[in-house]
Amino acid sequence: MRVVIEHEVGKSLGNITSDASNSVVPDRVGLPLTGGALRLARSILRYETVRAPQFIDITDDVEGVVASSGVSDGWVTVFSRHTTAAIKINEHEPELLKDLSRLLVSVAPEGGTYFHNDFTVRSVNMNEDECPNGHAHCQHLLLSASETIPLVDVRLMVGRWQRIFLIELDHGRARDVVVSVMGCEPDPPSEDGAGPQAGR
Amino acid sequence: MRVVIEHEVGKSLGNITSDASNSVVPDRVGLPLTGGALRLARSILRYETVRAPQFIDITDDVEGVVASSGVSDGWVTVFSRHTTAAIKINEHEPELLKDLSRLLVSVAPEGGTYFHNDFTVRSVNMNEDECPNGHAHCQHLLLSASETIPLVDVRLMVGRWQRIFLIELDHGRARDVVVSVMGCEPDPPSEDGAGPQAGR
Amino acid sequence: MRVVIEHEVGKSLGNITSDASNSVVPDRVGLPLTGGALRLARSILRYETVRAPQFIDITDDVEGVVASSGVSDGWVTVFSRHTTAAIKINEHEPELLKDLSRLLVSVAPEGGTYFHNDFTVRSVNMNEDECPNGHAHCQHLLLSASETIPLVDVRLMVGRWQRIFLIELDHGRARDVVVSVMGCEPDPPSEDGAGPQAGR
Repeated sequence: MRVVIEHEVGKSLGNITSDASNSVVPDRVGLPLTGGALRLARSILRYETVRAPQFIDITDDVEGVVASSGVSDGWVTVFSRHTTAAIKINEHEPELLKDLSRLLVSVAPEGGTYFHNDFTVRSVNMNEDECPNGHAHCQHLLLSASETIPLVDVRLMVGRWQRIFLIELDHGRARDVVVSVMGCEPDPPSEDGAGPQAGR
Repeated sequence: MRVVIEHEVGKSLGNITSDASNSVVPDRVGLPLTGGALRLARSILRYETVRAPQFIDITDDVEGVVASSGVSDGWVTVFSRHTTAAIKINEHEPELLKDLSRLLVSVAPEGGTYFHNDFTVRSVNMNEDECPNGHAHCQHLLLSASETIPLVDVRLMVGRWQRIFLIELDHGRARDVVVSVMGCEPDPPSEDGAGPQAGR
Repeated sequence: MRVVIEHEVGKSLGNITSDASNSVVPDRVGLPLTGGALRLARSILRYETVRAPQFIDITDDVEGVVASSGVSDGWVTVFSRHTTAAIKINEHEPELLKDLSRLLVSVAPEGGTYFHNDFTVRSVNMNEDECPNGHAHCQHLLLSASETIPLVDVRLMVGRWQRIFLIELDHGRARDVVVSVMGCEPDPPSEDGAGPQAGR
């Protein structure tokens, strides 16, 4: 079976007019690609959160998993295994994180009234240490459990300001994030001594 | 071509300090991986919804597709083919679903005023049976068309409380959800009689 | 290594009752699949936006990348490399885009007060041409950086009304969108002269 990696450079896709006042001009920007054997890798990262909302920048850890995965070109999916902790990409600027936290709290404040918090009515999924966290589930509804990011040359193709956050919405505890990597190795492994560009 | 599946266990990534008051300690938690031939599988699930907002737990169906896909380790993407029906992961607790429904209605109530509902002005995408559903599109903007979930040992790597929902935002009708699975078979198929761990 | 593409048609998954008043009946709808060598392709599309919020329909461009990728069955991930420009799927109806814009503005108006905009306090990520854009980051928190869409027969498996939008949240500028395609070629490449269905 062949694995073919292809990248088009500089091929114009024509003009777009999404509405009358637009002057959108699509263009392609080229990046070099290399190829090799297909690899799948996965790691679970565990974090101890301390409060909510808490934005934990896990970008360096995700990059660490990618670096050790042996995958050069492909994808990484970052997945939170929790219904009250989310994964989102945004800028890591401390003042901005205050704004984002304030928005989440305004959407669903912890002190609000939630059916989920009425333990006199609820009968499903009740634990001995059940905490009222309807606000955290509501905030999560508007966020995401995962982000999928393309990889090139063993690097995340994120933009200059993009950082990956685990967002704690409930209260401090252990949280698991699954980092899954799929793609090709940088070099064709010892086929005929040719370089990574050979045979493409 | 080789397929390499790799998983790192217990390798520390060092300390994270996402802000001054954090004491976040990342750690890796190991899960066993098995490998084999690469498989792609896909099924479309059709549901008849009855009202909006309606949260339909499709987790068992997604697990059924995964079980019959022959894929052991990889990913599943669950995709709604609709602009007024979303896919989200949250907890399946009946009282909580009332909270989530209430939040969606508060963000964009059906009785609100929407340009999309003004059929005296609108000229695009008009059908004979067009219903005013601006609220459903607005709610969908804050949700998602898809979720991507890692797989290990033919199981979704979801956490204890995570369930996958198709969320009807408009009104009862037939809805199609595409479930796509990609990954490796549990065992290398009859290469040299060795077990699944051989040659890795 | 084998690549196996599998699709189940008409296999019932049994009844679902997500709550007492449901009459949800899941059913599978079949689509033919073809298979071949595995391909990975990627292109970066550049757009010049002109205002915010601006909804730019990039569906035709994504389809163009898919068509030139050589991938028949698999996935495409559309990823925005920006923290103030998002990727979302919704209907392309001009009046509706006004509703969606109005919702974003109401969630986080440009004229609101944001910690991120207080340049007398902020010390991180400050540029010479820094613009106050806390509203754009807050709007982005409730949207997504990417969408993942299944492919069949070189076509996006989107529904009738689904269109892919790049959403500008800040102000007009150059924006890069990464389109990554993974999957199988339409035909097994010259193995024994058999058709695409052979050996499956």
